[in-house]
Amino acid sequence: MRKKGFFITFEGIDGSGKTTQLRLTEEYLIQRGRAVLVLREPGSTPVSEKIREILLDRRNRLSAETELLLYEAARAALVRDVIAPALKNGLIVLCDRFYDSTTAYQGYGRGINLSLIDRLNRLAVGKTHPDLTFLVDVDYSTSLRRRKKESDRLESESAAFFRRVRNGFLALARKEKNRIVVLRGDGSAAQTFTEVRNCLLRRLKIR
Amino acid sequence: MRKKGFFITFEGIDGSGKTTQLRLTEEYLIQRGRAVLVLREPGSTPVSEKIREILLDRRNRLSAETELLLYEAARAALVRDVIAPALKNGLIVLCDRFYDSTTAYQGYGRGINLSLIDRLNRLAVGKTHPDLTFLVDVDYSTSLRRRKKESDRLESESAAFFRRVRNGFLALARKEKNRIVVLRGDGSAAQTFTEVRNCLLRRLKIR
Repeated sequence: MRKKGFFITFEGIDGSGKTTQLRLTEEYLIQRGRAVLVLREPGSTPVSEKIREILLDRRNRLSAETELLLYEAARAALVRDVIAPALKNGLIVLCDRFYDSTTAYQGYGRGINLSLIDRLNRLAVGKTHPDLTFLVDVDYSTSLRRRKKESDRLESESAAFFRRVRNGFLALARKEKNRIVVLRGDGSAAQTFTEVRNCLLRRLKIR
Repeated sequence: MRKKGFFITFEGIDGSGKTTQLRLTEEYLIQRGRAVLVLREPGSTPVSEKIREILLDRRNRLSAETELLLYEAARAALVRDVIAPALKNGLIVLCDRFYDSTTAYQGYGRGINLSLIDRLNRLAVGKTHPDLTFLVDVDYSTSLRRRKKESDRLESESAAFFRRVRNGFLALARKEKNRIVVLRGDGSAAQTFTEVRNCLLRRLKIR
């Protein structure tokens, strides 16, 4: 069956403001009468939430390989149980992080082979790729200022790690110009959302 | 550092009697003064046991892809946290199922691409491969007779699935003749263990 919905992902390093942009997008689309489903990765299904607990529990010292495989497992469950059926039913799906985060964090950040990650990403999602991705780009000092004090395991990484991840996201955006829209995230949320809205107007044919 | 221990895995379809052979091997080696660590897959670390719960909970309808990725995640944790350090410390490690089960069940059984599974298996284990694998081979009717009535999610599969898995194990054994020893599992446990013991005598230089 032909896909009728529209799948938008929001990417960026922690503290970039991507979740704020997702919420503004949700509000904007709902006000224009669209049916919107908001998801977070990893999570949003019973299986994925259990996997999320393992990933975010600071007591679990996970190897890079274990971490990668758990993210992909949670993604495979989310795509099949939630995203693909929602798109088939014509919903607009907004997802807070998706496979670009795996490429950026586990690939560029932790140094796992990029072609293996690409293969795992494709195994996990099957035919369900994002139609549009907003990458909210900020530098490390901006992200640091914004992040909450009480950080979880993933958020307590080094500056060098975050710079590798940021560069990974930007490398992905250069490779997939048609899908990934880079937004400057160092201004106000409203400024950034102006760019998002302009893009939504073009891509979703919203009046 | 050079590996000093010895890593033995026990494989076969459910009801083959592999766990009985593992227990007999453990007893035999302990009686001969060896330090033996018994593990089960998926499981045997806090992270892997949490993953095992997700895998074995009948309420979770897992896709083949989610299942595969969860098995590999549990394996990556077990190898790094337990198996590799134990081998470095000179222990004999006995593991109830390992990566051949993934190849047989998810590859031959569920039809996931075998080269992808091979790559995932290698990502999960790194340099920690089994020194010796006992494959306990039985036909479907024998396995069915032996399996307990109250079966978990993985054990309630069709006859055709089990035949594909069995043939997958036997195909692996033909490819890796030096590592995988095929045992006929349709006789008594004691008969099967005679073959195991003869093999241990040769490979572990036990008097």
